[in-house]
Amino acid sequence: MTRDDAYAGLIGRLKRVYLLGSVSELLAWDEQVNLPPDSADQRAEQHAVLAETTHAAASDPRIGELLELLDSDGGPARRDGGLYPDRQAVLHQARRDYDRATKLPAEFVREKAAQGSRGYHVWAHAKRESDFASYAPVLEKNLELAQREAAYLGWGDRPYDAMIDKNDPGLSAEFIAPLFAELKRELAPLAAEIAHSPVKPQRGLLHGFPVEAQRQLLREVTERIGFDYGRGRIDVSLHPFCLGTGADVRMTTRFKEDEPLDSLFSAIHETGHGLYEQGLPREHYGTALGMHAGMAVHESQSRLWENQVGRSRGFWRFFEPRLRELFPEQTRGVSADALYLAINAVKPTPIRIEADEVTYNLHIILRFELERKLFAGELAVRDLPDAWREAARELLGLVPANDREGVLQDVHWSDGSFGYFPSYCLGNMMAAQLWAHVRRLRPGLEEEFARGEFGWLLDWLRREVHAQGRRYAMPELVRRITGEEFSPRFLVDYLRERYGALYLR
Amino acid sequence: MTRDDAYAGLIGRLKRVYLLGSVSELLAWDEQVNLPPDSADQRAEQHAVLAETTHAAASDPRIGELLELLDSDGGPARRDGGLYPDRQAVLHQARRDYDRATKLPAEFVREKAAQGSRGYHVWAHAKRESDFASYAPVLEKNLELAQREAAYLGWGDRPYDAMIDKNDPGLSAEFIAPLFAELKRELAPLAAEIAHSPVKPQRGLLHGFPVEAQRQLLREVTERIGFDYGRGRIDVSLHPFCLGTGADVRMTTRFKEDEPLDSLFSAIHETGHGLYEQGLPREHYGTALGMHAGMAVHESQSRLWENQVGRSRGFWRFFEPRLRELFPEQTRGVSADALYLAINAVKPTPIRIEADEVTYNLHIILRFELERKLFAGELAVRDLPDAWREAARELLGLVPANDREGVLQDVHWSDGSFGYFPSYCLGNMMAAQLWAHVRRLRPGLEEEFARGEFGWLLDWLRREVHAQGRRYAMPELVRRITGEEFSPRFLVDYLRERYGALYLR
Repeated sequence: MTRDDAYAGLIGRLKRVYLLGSVSELLAWDEQVNLPPDSADQRAEQHAVLAETTHAAASDPRIGELLELLDSDGGPARRDGGLYPDRQAVLHQARRDYDRATKLPAEFVREKAAQGSRGYHVWAHAKRESDFASYAPVLEKNLELAQREAAYLGWGDRPYDAMIDKNDPGLSAEFIAPLFAELKRELAPLAAEIAHSPVKPQRGLLHGFPVEAQRQLLREVTERIGFDYGRGRIDVSLHPFCLGTGADVRMTTRFKEDEPLDSLFSAIHETGHGLYEQGLPREHYGTALGMHAGMAVHESQSRLWENQVGRSRGFWRFFEPRLRELFPEQTRGVSADALYLAINAVKPTPIRIEADEVTYNLHIILRFELERKLFAGELAVRDLPDAWREAARELLGLVPANDREGVLQDVHWSDGSFGYFPSYCLGNMMAAQLWAHVRRLRPGLEEEFARGEFGWLLDWLRREVHAQGRRYAMPELVRRITGEEFSPRFLVDYLRERYGALYLR
Repeated sequence: MTRDDAYAGLIGRLKRVYLLGSVSELLAWDEQVNLPPDSADQRAEQHAVLAETTHAAASDPRIGELLELLDSDGGPARRDGGLYPDRQAVLHQARRDYDRATKLPAEFVREKAAQGSRGYHVWAHAKRESDFASYAPVLEKNLELAQREAAYLGWGDRPYDAMIDKNDPGLSAEFIAPLFAELKRELAPLAAEIAHSPVKPQRGLLHGFPVEAQRQLLREVTERIGFDYGRGRIDVSLHPFCLGTGADVRMTTRFKEDEPLDSLFSAIHETGHGLYEQGLPREHYGTALGMHAGMAVHESQSRLWENQVGRSRGFWRFFEPRLRELFPEQTRGVSADALYLAINAVKPTPIRIEADEVTYNLHIILRFELERKLFAGELAVRDLPDAWREAARELLGLVPANDREGVLQDVHWSDGSFGYFPSYCLGNMMAAQLWAHVRRLRPGLEEEFARGEFGWLLDWLRREVHAQGRRYAMPELVRRITGEEFSPRFLVDYLRERYGALYLR
C-alpha cells in the first residue's frame, strides 16, 4: 500500500464518521423543530444507536492501523520536508479523534448519551418548578461522568481542562482565567456606570409586529449578509440554534410580536454560525481542513455578525428604511435615535440569554468560576444555588428572584456540557479583535454596510477564518490574522466606544 | 446462556436494525419536505452510509449464532408444544431477514443505494423532458441489479418473484396473475360502461378553496377518524406519502386551491397508512409481531379509509356541513348530489395517481404485465414505450400523448422498486373484502359515520389487522379475518354497487 493509498483510506473512514455525525445533527434539529410530543422516547433511542454507531466508526481499528502506517512511514510532513503541512494537520486531528474514541469504552458512551437525554428532561421540569433539589442528583451524576471521561482520556488530574479542550482544542482554565480576570476588572465598572446613566432605552417601544412581515425582513437581512439558502434553511424553535454542516445548515429562530428585535438578532447570530459552516472547504469535510476550529471561533463568527455588524449604525442606515416600509404603523413616531438605542439596549438582567453585549461577558465569567470550583472539588453541588446568588450579586449587581432565574436557567449542564460557557466570552473577545483589525484594513466598511454591501467582509472572513478549517488553535489563528496576541482589550475598547457613546455622553 | 437470554439478545439486535431503519425513514421524509435544493448530494451520501450501517447491523454474525442456538435448541415452539407461536413467528422473520442481509454483499448494497439515488434524478429529468432514451440505461441497470439481487438471494430462476416477495412476503406472480386476469375481465367492461354513461361529474365544480381552511378541515377529518397527532404529523410535499413508524409517523399531502378534494383524499389515504403503523404493537417494534404484514396489507388500510369510508354517503353526511361552514362562498350553489358525484368521479386518464377507483386497478394490471415480461426477458427496455402505449389502449381505452404521461409517469422503477405496483391492487382487493365482511358484522356502520363515529371500525381494524403484525401472509390473514378465500370478487361487487348506483342508473 502506498502512502497515498493509506491516506485516501483514512480520509474515507473520517468522512464516514463525519456523515454519521451529520445525521445525528439532523435528528437533533428535527427533535426541536418537528418532533411530535409523544415521540421523544424513540428519538432518545435513535440518538443512542447513532452515538454507538458513530463511536464504533470513529474507533475502527483500521483507522489506527492507517495512522500507524502513515506515521511509521516517517510521516508525510517529515519525509517531504514540510511540503504537506495540510496532511500533517489532518493526521494530527485524526490521531486526536481516534485516541479519544478508543479511550472511551462503548459502554461509557452509551451511558453518557442516555444520561444526557434523561438529564435534559429532569432539568426542564426542575426549571419549570424552580426546584433545584430535583436537579441536583443529575448534576452530581454528570460531574461524575465528566470526571470519568477525563480519566479515560488521560486528563484525570485536570478534568475541567479536558472539558474545555473538547470545545476549544488547546485551551485550558489556566489560559482563560487571567483573560477573564482582566475583562471582569474592566467590564464590571463599565456595566455599573451604564446602569447609573440617565440614558435609558424606552420600554415597549416596538410592539405588534406581525410574524409574516418579521419573517420577510429576517429573510432579506440574512440573505443580504450572504447566507446561502440553497444549502440551508431557517425554522422556528423554542430556543434559537444552528445545527448541521455547510452542506445543509439548519438554523432556527422564534417570533414574538412585541419583540421583533429578538427574532431578528437571533437569526443574525445563527446566520453567523451558518456562514462559518458554509465557508468551510466542502471537499475537506470530516478532516481538520474542513472542520471548524472550535466553539470560541464559532462564536466569534456569530457574535461578529450579530453585534459588531448587526448593531452598527451603518447596518441600520441600510435596513431602517426597509423596517419602516414593512412596519409603517408600528414604527411611526419611533425616532431613529430611539430605535438605535433599543437595538443597543443595556439593562441588567439575571438571565444570560437576555443580557446585553456589556454584561453578557460577566454572566459567562460567573459560570466559568463556578465550573472551575465544581471540578476542583471546592464547591459541592448542593451549595451551588447559594454560590450562584453570591456571584450574581458581586458580578451583576443583582440577585435572581429564584433558582429558575439563577442556577437553573441554562440547559448546558443538564447533558453534561461543561466547559462550553467560556467559548461564548472567548468568541466575543475574538470577534472584537477581528473587528478592530478589519476596521484598520478597511476604514470605509460601515459605509459599505450603509449601501447594503457585506461582500467584502464575508470574503475576508471566508479567506482568513473559514478557509483555515482547524489548522490552528484559536489564539494562534487570531495571531496569524491580526498580527497581535489574543487579548481582551479589544473587546473592552469596543464596548467602551460603542456603549460609552450611547450611555456615557 | 439460557434460551430466554438468547432470545432477549436477539431481540435487542433486531431492535437496533429497526432503529437504524427508522432514522433512514426520517432522512427520506426530510429529503422531500425540508431539504435545501443544493443539499441533495450530501443527503445521498448520508443515505448510503446508513444503508451500509443498517446492512452491517442486520448481518451481525451474532444474530446468526443466536438464531442457530435458538433453533438447535429444538426451537421454542417445538419444544414447548406450540406454546410459543409468537416466538416462532419472530424467529421465522428474523431468519428470513438475516439470510437476506447475509446473502447480499455489502458492496452490492452500496452500489444499489448509490444507483437508486442517481436513478431518481435521471428519471426526474427524463420525465420533465419526456425523454425516455435518457432514462433507458438506468432502467437497464436497475433490471440487471434486480436480477443480481434475486440471484444472491437464491431466486435466480424467479427474479420477479423475488421482487414481489420483498414487498409482500409469500406472494408470487403465479398467485397474482389469475386474480388480476379475473379483475381485468370484470373491470374493463365496467369502466367502458361508465365512460359511456350520460352521468358526468361537473368539471371545475370546486375552486378557490383557501389553503389555511383546507388545512383546518384536513386536520379535523384525520383526527376524527383516529390519527394520533401526539405521535405523528402531516406536512407538505410534491407527492403525498407516509413514512416513519407508529412511534413517529410522518405523512404529507399537497394543497391546490382548485382541487380541495385532492389534498383531503391524499391525507385520508396517508392517514390510513399512519393508523396502521400506530396500531402495530409498540413493544414489538423490530420483530414480526410489531411489523406490518407487507405492502398489500398496508395499502388495504390506506385504501379502505380513503375509499370505502372516505367516499361513502355516511362519511359525507357528517363532513358536508362542516365543509360548507368552512367554505360558504365556494360551496354555494353546489348541490349535495353534485358534490357526491365529484367525490366519486370516474374519468379516463393516462395517469395512475389521478385515476379513479374503478380504472386504478387497470393501471396496476398494465404495470404488472409489463414488469413480468421485462423480468422474463420477453420485453426489452427499448421497446417499453411502445408496449406501454399498446397496453394503455387495450386496458384503458386511451393512448398517452407522450412518454411523460406514459412510461415515465411513475417514480418506482427509477430506484429499482420493481414488484411494488401489484401491492396497490391487492390492497384494493383486500380493502373491499374486509369492507364486505365488516358491513355484515356491523350493518349500521355508515350510520355511525354519519354521526362522526369511526371508533368501532378503527378498534376492529386494530384488533383484526394491526395487532397481528406480520404473523400471517396476506391471503392467510384475510382468510382468518373473513373466513373466506382472498378473492377479487369483493372488489368487483363493491365497485359495481357504488359506481353502478351513480353512473348506470
